[in-house]
Parts: sequence; C-alpha cells; structure tokens
Amino acid sequence: MNTGDIMFKPPSFPSLRRFLMAGLLAISISGFAQDDLIWNALDPDNTVYLELQEGLVVIQLNPTFAPKTVKQLKLLMEDQFYRGTSFYRVIDGFVAQGGDESDIDGSTIAKALKAEFEIDWPLEAADKEQAKDWKPMSWTPVQTGDMFAAYTGFIDGFPAARDEKKGGKAWLTQCPGIVAMARNEDPDSGGTDFYIVIGQAPRYLDRNLTVFGRVVWGMDVVQRIKRGPALENGIIEKDLDRTWIKRMRLASNIDSEQRPDIYVADTNSDGFKKMIEERRNRKQKFFHHKPPKVLDICQIPIPARLEKRYVRKD
Amino acid sequence: MNTGDIMFKPPSFPSLRRFLMAGLLAISISGFAQDDLIWNALDPDNTVYLELQEGLVVIQLNPTFAPKTVKQLKLLMEDQFYRGTSFYRVIDGFVAQGGDESDIDGSTIAKALKAEFEIDWPLEAADKEQAKDWKPMSWTPVQTGDMFAAYTGFIDGFPAARDEKKGGKAWLTQCPGIVAMARNEDPDSGGTDFYIVIGQAPRYLDRNLTVFGRVVWGMDVVQRIKRGPALENGIIEKDLDRTWIKRMRLASNIDSEQRPDIYVADTNSDGFKKMIEERRNRKQKFFHHKPPKVLDICQIPIPARLEKRYVRKD
Repeated sequence: MNTGDIMFKPPSFPSLRRFLMAGLLAISISGFAQDDLIWNALDPDNTVYLELQEGLVVIQLNPTFAPKTVKQLKLLMEDQFYRGTSFYRVIDGFVAQGGDESDIDGSTIAKALKAEFEIDWPLEAADKEQAKDWKPMSWTPVQTGDMFAAYTGFIDGFPAARDEKKGGKAWLTQCPGIVAMARNEDPDSGGTDFYIVIGQAPRYLDRNLTVFGRVVWGMDVVQRIKRGPALENGIIEKDLDRTWIKRMRLASNIDSEQRPDIYVADTNSDGFKKMIEERRNRKQKFFHHKPPKVLDICQIPIPARLEKRYVRKD
Repeated sequence: MNTGDIMFKPPSFPSLRRFLMAGLLAISISGFAQDDLIWNALDPDNTVYLELQEGLVVIQLNPTFAPKTVKQLKLLMEDQFYRGTSFYRVIDGFVAQGGDESDIDGSTIAKALKAEFEIDWPLEAADKEQAKDWKPMSWTPVQTGDMFAAYTGFIDGFPAARDEKKGGKAWLTQCPGIVAMARNEDPDSGGTDFYIVIGQAPRYLDRNLTVFGRVVWGMDVVQRIKRGPALENGIIEKDLDRTWIKRMRLASNIDSEQRPDIYVADTNSDGFKKMIEERRNRKQKFFHHKPPKVLDICQIPIPARLEKRYVRKD
C-alpha cells in the first residue's frame, strides 16, 4: 500500500500521462486510500486560521497539553493581537518565529504563563466536574527506545513522547509543523510570540517549551515565510524582508461556510496503525537494503485532506 | 557560544532595535563566530548552480561517493539536459523531485547507472594512479548508536553513517538538503531525474539511493518549490502548477566573477567539532530540562556564508 513515500520514478512521459489521465496512478500509489483510516473534521473551537500573504495556514490547538496557553491565545486572537505582526526571526531548517517581538509587558491581555512543557501520564481528570465525562487518552505507539525518549507515539493526532517511569510524564515532541511559545531564560516567561518548526526536528528542545498546536494544513505556505540570516540568529531587521501576519483567527469565529473543509487522519484508527507498521516493515522490492525496523516519530506524516477548495470571500 | 539555535525571544522592541543598531546582537548570539572554524571555498569543478524562478540553489557534488553519477551529471549539464525541465513530483515534508520525468531511454547521453549507495570504509585508492596523492578520508564523529546506524558523522562536509563492522561500509545519510538520483525498482535504474530532501530526514532510504550532492546555499529557495498533492504521490499534472528549472550549470563553466562567493564550514575543523560538542552538552540556563546527550546527524547545521551579494548578470 504505502509506496507514496519511496522514490519511484514515474514511467516515461507518455505512459505517465496515460496513467494520470486514467486516474490510476493516484489511486494505485496513494498511501492512504484505505478503508480503515478514519478522517476527523477539525473542532472549530480549537482550530486557528493563520493568514499570510502567501496563503492560509491551519493550526490545530492542543488544550490538553497547554490549557493556559490555548486559553490566552484565544483571547489574544479575539483582541486581534497578531494582526499586522510579523515573522521576525526565521532560520531555514529550524524555526519561523512570529508575534509582536515584545516581551509581554506591554500588553493589557497577555500574561507571562507558567510553563506547560509536559503532563502527567496517564492524565487524570483535574476535578469532579471534569471527571464526569473523562476518557483516558489514546496512545498509538511508534518507537520504544527512540534516541531522545523512552517511548514515542501519537496522542490524539499529536506526535509525543514519554519517559520510562510508570506515573511519569508525556510531552509533545518538537517535530516539523509544531507550534510552540517562545520564551526567555525563565521557563515561565512565554505568552504571545510563538514559533513553528520548519526543519529537522530540534528534539533537544523537547520538554523545554510549551507546544500548543500543530500545523495540519498549509505547511507549504509556512515554508514560504521569508528567512533571516542564519549566522545572525535569523533576525530580520527590515520590514520589507519580513513575512507579515494578516490575521489570526479562531475557526469558530468565522462563518462556517467560509471555513476550509479539512479532515485529518485519526492517529488512533486501525488504518493509521497499519500505516505505521508498514513503514516499520518495508516490504517493497524497491528496498535493496532493508531499512532497520525503527521509526522516527517526526517522520510519520499525518494525512490531511481538503474536501472543497478554500476561497476567501472577504 | 552556540545560542543561535535555542528559543530566546529577543528583548522588547526598543531594546532589540538598540541591540541591532549597535550590531551587538548578531555578534553575541551567533553560534559560529569563532576563530577555529575553517571556511572552505567551494570547488568550482564540483559545484552546481541550479537556477529556478525563485532564485539560485547551490549544490556541492560528491564525486567520492558517487563518481559515475557525478560524471554523467556533468555531461548532462553541459548538454543543457535540465534546461526547461521541472519539479514534477513534490511532497511537502519529504522530497522535491525534478528532471525530464522520463526514464533514461530517450536520451543519447544518459545511461542508467550502477547503484552508488555506499562505499568501502576506509576507502582505499582504486588504482596506482589514484594512490599517488591519496589521503585517508576524514571522519568527524557525531553519534554512536544512532537509531538508524551504528555510527554517524561527517565525511568532508557531508552527513554520513557507517555500519558496525571493521572493513564495513559508509554512506551519505538522507538528511534535508541532500540531492540523490531517483530510480525505479531496479537499483541500477537511476541516471537523470533527481530529488532534494525538503523535510524530516527519510532515513529509511539510507543505502537505497545514490546521494551525489548537498544543497549548501539556497535551501530557502528549494522550500519555495511548488508542492503537489501529498495523497496523490505529489505528482503535479499541470505545467502552470510546477516550478521550472531555468538552468543547471557547473560553476567552472561560468565566469569566475559571476560566481556567488560562498564559503562552507569545514566539518573537520576544530571549531566545527567544538560546535558539535556544545550541541551535545547543552549548558545554557535556558534548558530547564537537560536534553539527553545525543545528536541527530541531520539536525546539525553546516554553516555557510556568502561574502558578497550574488547578482545575476545575464
């Protein structure tokens, strides 16, 4: 099934065209055309539309791992805090960092937030109210003995890791596409300015920053954000050299007909688990040298699809 | 020294400006401003300029690991084979694959090449002629017990790995920015169409494809290459939706004054080795949780700098 991620050249030009016209190529080599993959619609209360000149970026928020951060972000968006701010520190292969480039002192809404770097595992309900409809969180295992953690896996659509102990901690891993709060030396100093990982996973940052979301659509747009000079910490001095944020809004604040119709694969579904196992055990003849049966948590794509084309109406 | 890759927010706006104006920020937080880092000029006989609408991409060739592939590529470039070809298969987070999207049957120059997936380690001179000025290759160690290989390290500016045996094999790892030949199921079927890794390292492809180069400048340009639909194997059907290759030339075929003046850090220099050790042992107070003392070979940037701005003259 999963040949979409190996390096097949297409057949020579004329036959490629034939294949494409017959629509066969897409079906036969798509890695995700299986029946047992469940597609979840995004929850508009936890979905952010980040609008750049280059296009739309859709971010799924994670209030389980970062409740305070998500709460404040929603307030900031409602206050149009990010409108007209920019990505002022962008290092290719590392991160795109945006916001108003201030510490949070100047804002009337934003507070420096307590670190939300990790959660207890398993996570229990915080109070009786929450306990009423509490469901234990899902864990889709990926790797035991990952180089940076005892265990890696997916927790409800997010790449994550856990330590060895029972009654230990779980955290969201610093994979490409994750969105986290920037901060100063003080662990409790983040609150407004955020970054998106745009290169090879900086896993050494795991458990050191509050990851509060993940780009589920539009990483190609994120990759067009203008870079700063790597040897000068990526800081972009000139306004014209920066990519600007037009708007950043919560999906539920937008007319439902104007929302892009995005579905994301359920990482807890059988189809997704099968995909993981097929990536671990590569059976195609293509593999002259059999890959070791290990998986990098940050190298497993979470399929997403757009049902109808998004056209901005305003 | 190496704080350029942690998540410091800049100080608030006014003081940031002050810092930048004084030029202090760049010096104090740049990770590579050390005396013992050696900068190598690129060898024009093994440097490729890939010109896209979006800008210039500079690729360093590796004739040690892929002698036949590099030789044929030079012939193809001299024949202007790539002029007006395109990136026809582009999957965000994975690869941008370009060329004339044919197998090599139609070309009078291109031959399907024998796989050049790995070399003997240590590599000996092939014949008496080569033995005359043979130097043993350098190995800058990065990680023992990498998840995908027994050892990882740098070999003359390229991320690489080795197996456990003495008298074993070495290969170039599939890190972001590497350039390799696409192929069909047959290991010896590649020859013209190539890909650039643009996402999290697909290390399961290690030892399965001929890596012949590395992007040393312009990865931000590569990241602007237009993507295809991930669920349809990234194939871009419409010409207008593709990024086209204007030219692809060997640097030595271009007037030296028109060449961008690029220097790449020597991965065998003391400064680079120090940088590796500082990344392994993160001592900054920023690290609330001390990262494990392991390194991902694909997450170590190889600094490069441009001495004077490149302006295309023709």
